[in-house]
Amino acid sequence: MTRRLFTEPEHRARALLARWGRELGCIVEQDRIGNLFVRRPGRSAGPALQFGSHLDTVVDGGAYDGAYGVTGGLCALERFVERGIETQRPMELAAWAGEEGSRFPVGCLGSAVYVGWESFDEMLQLRDDHGVTLGEALRGPCGLLEGVPIREGFPVPAAYAELHIEQGPVLERAGISLGVVTAIAGMYRYTVRVVGEAGHAGTVPMAVRRDAFCGAAEFALAVEAMARELGDCVATIGWVDVAPNQTNIVPGSVTCRVDARSTDEARLLTIDRRLPAIAREVGERRGLRIEVERFEDRRPTPLDERLEAVLRTTLGELGLAHMDLPSGAVHDAMCLAALAPAAMLFVPSAAGASHVGHEHTDPADLERGVDAFTGWLLAIDRAL
Amino acid sequence: MTRRLFTEPEHRARALLARWGRELGCIVEQDRIGNLFVRRPGRSAGPALQFGSHLDTVVDGGAYDGAYGVTGGLCALERFVERGIETQRPMELAAWAGEEGSRFPVGCLGSAVYVGWESFDEMLQLRDDHGVTLGEALRGPCGLLEGVPIREGFPVPAAYAELHIEQGPVLERAGISLGVVTAIAGMYRYTVRVVGEAGHAGTVPMAVRRDAFCGAAEFALAVEAMARELGDCVATIGWVDVAPNQTNIVPGSVTCRVDARSTDEARLLTIDRRLPAIAREVGERRGLRIEVERFEDRRPTPLDERLEAVLRTTLGELGLAHMDLPSGAVHDAMCLAALAPAAMLFVPSAAGASHVGHEHTDPADLERGVDAFTGWLLAIDRAL
Repeated sequence: MTRRLFTEPEHRARALLARWGRELGCIVEQDRIGNLFVRRPGRSAGPALQFGSHLDTVVDGGAYDGAYGVTGGLCALERFVERGIETQRPMELAAWAGEEGSRFPVGCLGSAVYVGWESFDEMLQLRDDHGVTLGEALRGPCGLLEGVPIREGFPVPAAYAELHIEQGPVLERAGISLGVVTAIAGMYRYTVRVVGEAGHAGTVPMAVRRDAFCGAAEFALAVEAMARELGDCVATIGWVDVAPNQTNIVPGSVTCRVDARSTDEARLLTIDRRLPAIAREVGERRGLRIEVERFEDRRPTPLDERLEAVLRTTLGELGLAHMDLPSGAVHDAMCLAALAPAAMLFVPSAAGASHVGHEHTDPADLERGVDAFTGWLLAIDRAL
Repeated sequence: MTRRLFTEPEHRARALLARWGRELGCIVEQDRIGNLFVRRPGRSAGPALQFGSHLDTVVDGGAYDGAYGVTGGLCALERFVERGIETQRPMELAAWAGEEGSRFPVGCLGSAVYVGWESFDEMLQLRDDHGVTLGEALRGPCGLLEGVPIREGFPVPAAYAELHIEQGPVLERAGISLGVVTAIAGMYRYTVRVVGEAGHAGTVPMAVRRDAFCGAAEFALAVEAMARELGDCVATIGWVDVAPNQTNIVPGSVTCRVDARSTDEARLLTIDRRLPAIAREVGERRGLRIEVERFEDRRPTPLDERLEAVLRTTLGELGLAHMDLPSGAVHDAMCLAALAPAAMLFVPSAAGASHVGHEHTDPADLERGVDAFTGWLLAIDRAL
């Protein structure tokens, strides 16, 4: 699956959701950043109980990350309709735009704009890898949906619930189908630029080389060792750009990104102090200039204890085994938690695999997740 | 400079050389692989004294690598014409196609086909990064030159001489303007594929990761340490491809290439034995599959001692300081040496820089190189 934000496959997914929402008799709307909403009125006209996830994917991603929460939420709406259930509050499914940072370099784009963390006007200037701005993409044929009303502003929901695959191995290893998410890990991200000296691969003696790739390799291994030593955190170098990237040229520069996560803020602050020290040490020893620049620093997000308690009670009533766990991945719920009580329900990921084509969740777990999520939404509606 | 083989800038360079050759009153021809020849008849119609270099460059390469040998050879022809010098043999300047492997994945493409190392028919099937075959490129608008006769076959020259920048720091460090090249380093090249397991950068604990980039980093540092320890050789990882190369995904695989060179064949054979051992050691420790595949193995090429002696005598007569040195870089002379006596003359490269935009040679050194080369060609013509 490759559904990058505001590309044809992602646009098709949103159009399909809009159609399904209308077929259910719901009100379908979008906002100006491209978030899509499927709303079923409640007895009161007050703030909605909002729930959902995202439809975009990373490049060569899987079928479940994001899409499960959106389609699972639609299944919940469908059950309300089929069973003629009247809810107190409006029930509103949201498909948040660009959670993966799949085309423009900001994650949780739609939900971050929704909650006011990012400025809509500034986001319009973001450029994709081909120099196209977000504003241009929004107005283009794969941007906002035609024929779907554009909502003014970003109304505050009464609460927010998100159903998602775990994307990690914890539930599967424990043999438990449902996870109550207690917190979302904080994420610090860095751009690291290693500058050496390019030269001919045949004629520059080893002793006088300033090989940027060898420097980046040492930096990467030191970052890995640091994360292992600290524990309860992860640090990843997933994106690497070698220049000029020719077989017969000693690399002159390497740019890469470090992605560090933990639910413990103290560990993130330790990493934040250590990365420049690692860069200095490797750089001085190898005659390289290594710059470390933080471009994202999101603190850990505790989720709402009252919603979690409602979820545990619901799961108990339904007789469904469950466990608490933190989320190592970022989710739209992280943003929504700034606006309203927010919580999450996880289902297992086979082998913990995610952001890959073979990402998989057992159909029985998917069903169980939707059952539990439907019950939870109704319980929240009663409890709030 | 970016003149990749059979692209518009490279085609323009060949067209310009053809025009300059005709303006000098020479015979301009090409062969079917795209090598271009500018020929001035001699008193005899026998095999030509051939000399030249190449016009293609690496991506973001410099102004002198290859182009100096071609334009310097044209300057020599111009001096013969201006001074009315009659030579015994035909004097033939050659611009060899695609020495840099700049578009298709074979270095010294034109000269290797010329000397019979590569089959013309097989080369036609080579594909560039966009899937275009060499055959298609040859027939395309930037392939063979229009209006230039296509020569049958690949006639054997009487001898071959090549003028080139050193592309290394040896002459500059010695403060000597001219270098008599004694040998061309052999070059062994390998594709290395590191296969781990992709996963979400936030949810896969450090302890269970099989990170292909960290494995590639360890491999690269072990290769660097090996080359330093062996001495008199170089080993470079200049091209690296990380997949899926996303900030938030643990790398699932890395492909890279190793380029190892030495004028001592024993060292190349040692490297050839050690690379798979390094791969095994890193792979076993990290739970990665690391495959090492050699895709090129060119032995060191000693150059022709008689031509070298003629060059030293010429330089002595002209009162020009010179030194012997090996070439760490590959040149078309390496191929031509299989067909005829071949030798090379080097001029210095500022800071040893090459295959980079700021590649530079002092204009006085360029002039001195052409003076020496012109004298050498006439001396070879007399000596053979």
